[in-house]
Amino acid sequence: MSGPKSTADGEKVAASGLSIFSKYDPLKQRVDVVKKLGVDPFDMTFDDIMSATRGRIGNREIILAGTNNYLGLTFDPSTRASAKDAIDRHGTGTTGSRIANGTYVEHEQLERDLAAHLGKPSCIVFTTGYVTNLAAMAGLAGPNDVIFIDADAHACIIDGTRLAGTTTVRFRHNNPADLDKRLARQKIPEGGHALVVIEGLYSMFGDIAPIDEFVAVAHKHGAYLYVDEAHSYGVFGETGAGIAEEQGVLDKIDFYSGTFSKSLASVGGFCASRHPEFELLRKVMRPYMFTASAAPSNICAAQAALDAIKTRPELRHNIMARAAQLHAGLSDMGFELCAPASPVIAVRRDNEVQAAMEWNWLLQEGVYVNLAVPPGTPESSSLLRISVSAAHTEEDVNAILSRFKALKDNGDDIIAEMMRRMQASA
Amino acid sequence: MSGPKSTADGEKVAASGLSIFSKYDPLKQRVDVVKKLGVDPFDMTFDDIMSATRGRIGNREIILAGTNNYLGLTFDPSTRASAKDAIDRHGTGTTGSRIANGTYVEHEQLERDLAAHLGKPSCIVFTTGYVTNLAAMAGLAGPNDVIFIDADAHACIIDGTRLAGTTTVRFRHNNPADLDKRLARQKIPEGGHALVVIEGLYSMFGDIAPIDEFVAVAHKHGAYLYVDEAHSYGVFGETGAGIAEEQGVLDKIDFYSGTFSKSLASVGGFCASRHPEFELLRKVMRPYMFTASAAPSNICAAQAALDAIKTRPELRHNIMARAAQLHAGLSDMGFELCAPASPVIAVRRDNEVQAAMEWNWLLQEGVYVNLAVPPGTPESSSLLRISVSAAHTEEDVNAILSRFKALKDNGDDIIAEMMRRMQASA
Repeated sequence: MSGPKSTADGEKVAASGLSIFSKYDPLKQRVDVVKKLGVDPFDMTFDDIMSATRGRIGNREIILAGTNNYLGLTFDPSTRASAKDAIDRHGTGTTGSRIANGTYVEHEQLERDLAAHLGKPSCIVFTTGYVTNLAAMAGLAGPNDVIFIDADAHACIIDGTRLAGTTTVRFRHNNPADLDKRLARQKIPEGGHALVVIEGLYSMFGDIAPIDEFVAVAHKHGAYLYVDEAHSYGVFGETGAGIAEEQGVLDKIDFYSGTFSKSLASVGGFCASRHPEFELLRKVMRPYMFTASAAPSNICAAQAALDAIKTRPELRHNIMARAAQLHAGLSDMGFELCAPASPVIAVRRDNEVQAAMEWNWLLQEGVYVNLAVPPGTPESSSLLRISVSAAHTEEDVNAILSRFKALKDNGDDIIAEMMRRMQASA
Repeated sequence: MSGPKSTADGEKVAASGLSIFSKYDPLKQRVDVVKKLGVDPFDMTFDDIMSATRGRIGNREIILAGTNNYLGLTFDPSTRASAKDAIDRHGTGTTGSRIANGTYVEHEQLERDLAAHLGKPSCIVFTTGYVTNLAAMAGLAGPNDVIFIDADAHACIIDGTRLAGTTTVRFRHNNPADLDKRLARQKIPEGGHALVVIEGLYSMFGDIAPIDEFVAVAHKHGAYLYVDEAHSYGVFGETGAGIAEEQGVLDKIDFYSGTFSKSLASVGGFCASRHPEFELLRKVMRPYMFTASAAPSNICAAQAALDAIKTRPELRHNIMARAAQLHAGLSDMGFELCAPASPVIAVRRDNEVQAAMEWNWLLQEGVYVNLAVPPGTPESSSLLRISVSAAHTEEDVNAILSRFKALKDNGDDIIAEMMRRMQASA
């Protein structure tokens, strides 16, 4: 074997002096720079989380404004009681996959209730949201099928195409006309089909897909449409069934996926289909077959949150009111926002250093938002990304706005001060 | 676009009449046959789970002997109290990934304690066990690296190579000499490294890897050794640190992965490394970065189970005593077992129809084991797979043995009776 050589004690020393980690040396240097700004935005720890809107770091209380806890149900008495009751009845885990001993009546009940809410004959529950798209996409698309994904597709959709291992075509973000052209042009192998994968609400910019137009284009070409409503299920639509419901095309969606770790206040995911044959994929999808099933407490928390989505429309009214308030406030201050008001509000900054410094300053001032920087962001933009919750009060949003006002008014001073600190610590 | 055409209402009708599901028609026919035998072994639901060793289907109480609940801790007062306390303090979910708001002090504490138990400087906790290997393998292996996997590798290791997308070489099962040959023969691209992935206890046959020999071979060639101890962590070794500890080579393992959904009585996974640079992979591994972090209740249940592993060695003594009892009993009856006594005991059957019928009969008689049939099994064998728990009593094992005795004595009559029922229901 060429390449690495060993030493007597088994330590690896490549002929070149490189290790298996050397490929990440440039990343390491970048991380070291970020760390000098203060808290590493991608490796931080909360010392306490006290409610859906409050955390603590050291002695500082933090308003949580970047958690995707859209309906604020993680601390709701109903979800907590349901999760604790599940632990009393069934213990702390199933220790088995869905195809072995890991399917309890609670897993099936949740599948039935989600299917009913979405008006689909089939719904399959998974242990995480990430694995839901991986499993369903790789299960649906065989070697003769072609997957079409939006240019801004989430990482789990991209990884779904990798696990599927089939031809993948990207179309322009939220652009049904571009999809139309590519579907017309693409040769699909004999016996194969086209699977178009989009999201409802895109998680970085907070922009919304024209699902109704995508339905028309996909079905015109005989393609299947797969919509991930991870960030919109529970939040949009008259009954909370998402943007597809709001746009009146819920019944036309072939595959509808979502997560438990946002509005459903738990951890897990689901994929529903209007095709009853989807049930057969339980025997095909490896991430489903070889992952331990969700713990009873996770399933029962999601079940309680689903019940809240169906019976407490005021949660949706609250979050939309707070989103409108925050969006209007930031807009009035002159911030450039990436999309109209939605529960995800992305504030565009000039560059990643500015964004990272402002992120640190906001945290020091008691507001947690998300930092989003290239290469993972649309248009390689640097963003301060805020997610609003139904649990936020009008005063919470005012508090968030006041910090952004300070950034707007004294941004240069704040950056200069952060720069001084960085140099002092260097 | 060639291939499928649409109808007016958007239903897909391929020119050939095939749908995206048609590729699974042969599977569907096979499933329909299995369903006629009674309960579908891969799509069954427990009406209740009352303890680590007892479930209920309809009115029938079932001894659970196929759940991988090795230490029986899912119903332990300590794990349940810890999980419920976490829900009281932090709610039902984090609604954020580890690189956003999903790292609490509890996640870090568990990482530190697992790292300390394994004597490694770095340990990363994931939301499921399946995703642990996917994430770590795809993070470690770049395009110039080559992954070497055992011929009997678990599905999540195979999927890890798919996500990594690098050259993959299989070597003969549990055969360090064959690995030696292949490592010597394989050309590793400039700057690349070899990553060898094995398991401690193989989950189908229950056979144990000669990890010590693999260490010597891998390190002789300058390769990194990755050991998945999902089925052996907590069960083997003087302190429960697995087969690597038992064989005296724990400190030589480069990457050590495990799951929370077996001995740790929860859901999640971990990977520890003797290389501190492993920490950097938190910023690389997409399944880690884009999965919501484990719920506080799951983390705290695993933490309580880890404390039990460290302080209650009698759990390991119990499971080994029950494994020895069951193995000796089945062996004395003349059953062909696939490996020496371990917590996984696989009983080889003649073919998959016999195995499926016997599985159904055992369930009717109140014993749940796992059915394992080709193509997923080593040597294409058909198995009745039993997993033993520290929570099983001597009487439980005697009850399991009595059902197998009946199978041995009256197997032909039992099969004939199941065949009659199958034909009657056809």
